[in-house]
Amino acid sequence: MEEKVVHAVQDFYPEDFAWCYGCGRMNKEGHQFRTGWQGEQTLTIYTPKEEHTAIPGFVYGGLIASLIDCHGTGSAALALHRKNGHEVGDGVEPPRFVTASLKVDFVKPTPHGVPLRAVGIVTEIHPKKWKVDAEVFANEKIVAKGEVVAVVMPSSFAKGGE
Amino acid sequence: MEEKVVHAVQDFYPEDFAWCYGCGRMNKEGHQFRTGWQGEQTLTIYTPKEEHTAIPGFVYGGLIASLIDCHGTGSAALALHRKNGHEVGDGVEPPRFVTASLKVDFVKPTPHGVPLRAVGIVTEIHPKKWKVDAEVFANEKIVAKGEVVAVVMPSSFAKGGE
Repeated sequence: MEEKVVHAVQDFYPEDFAWCYGCGRMNKEGHQFRTGWQGEQTLTIYTPKEEHTAIPGFVYGGLIASLIDCHGTGSAALALHRKNGHEVGDGVEPPRFVTASLKVDFVKPTPHGVPLRAVGIVTEIHPKKWKVDAEVFANEKIVAKGEVVAVVMPSSFAKGGE
Repeated sequence: MEEKVVHAVQDFYPEDFAWCYGCGRMNKEGHQFRTGWQGEQTLTIYTPKEEHTAIPGFVYGGLIASLIDCHGTGSAALALHRKNGHEVGDGVEPPRFVTASLKVDFVKPTPHGVPLRAVGIVTEIHPKKWKVDAEVFANEKIVAKGEVVAVVMPSSFAKGGE
């Protein structure tokens, strides 16, 4: 049976904030990454589409970077939500994060055609700024490592970014 | 008149290596980023599609990371090709790089609907390993900074990645 994230934070973002190409459930053209808890770690599972190649047989690095990016913001949202006394699906909207920085080390070529598992460890570095250390696995082998610094979405983002 | 990269290195990659979701000219589902020289710097121009949103009005960070990724490998290919005494389009196939690491700092929210310009400075750190410092502009304002370390595509990549 295929592993699946059951309680994903992205399922509960406010609708206006659910249009992310990476993880927005409203964006039907996007990847619709979904991130949930797995014990004390966070987990996002995604099987790349046929076109997501670097060269035939291997996954495009930018897709892996995108996976780590949204895994990072989703993981931070899960962690702050829990810190605030809430769990996904309890009726309270989770916070929404944006990415301040993203770092990816590509450990080895990533085989195409199998699910990728991004696993994260979340650390608070400031009440509005969280760090997520991520590892991405294919066939249970690590293929990439990432670090995301995510910040609570600033009000300027919703108002026009200036 | 819209600015355009005329001599792009990706136009001359061997056909087998032109399936990258980011920059492969054979991958019709992909972004088809194109990178060329602009003086001593490198340039990639891309206008995100409607679906490439973070939230409505702003560009998805993973798309910007993808742009920097392929801009990096393309820039490294241009630089090594020139070091080898060649220019894009002179009949000699350019080298093909893969990304070892990618770092992106998101400087400000990126407005959607305008062309993004990635500008790169390429530095050789080893004959097979090149660093590309990139800046991404929208409406002539910097929106992201990136660093890519790219390495000449190892033979293992073509053989199965193990």
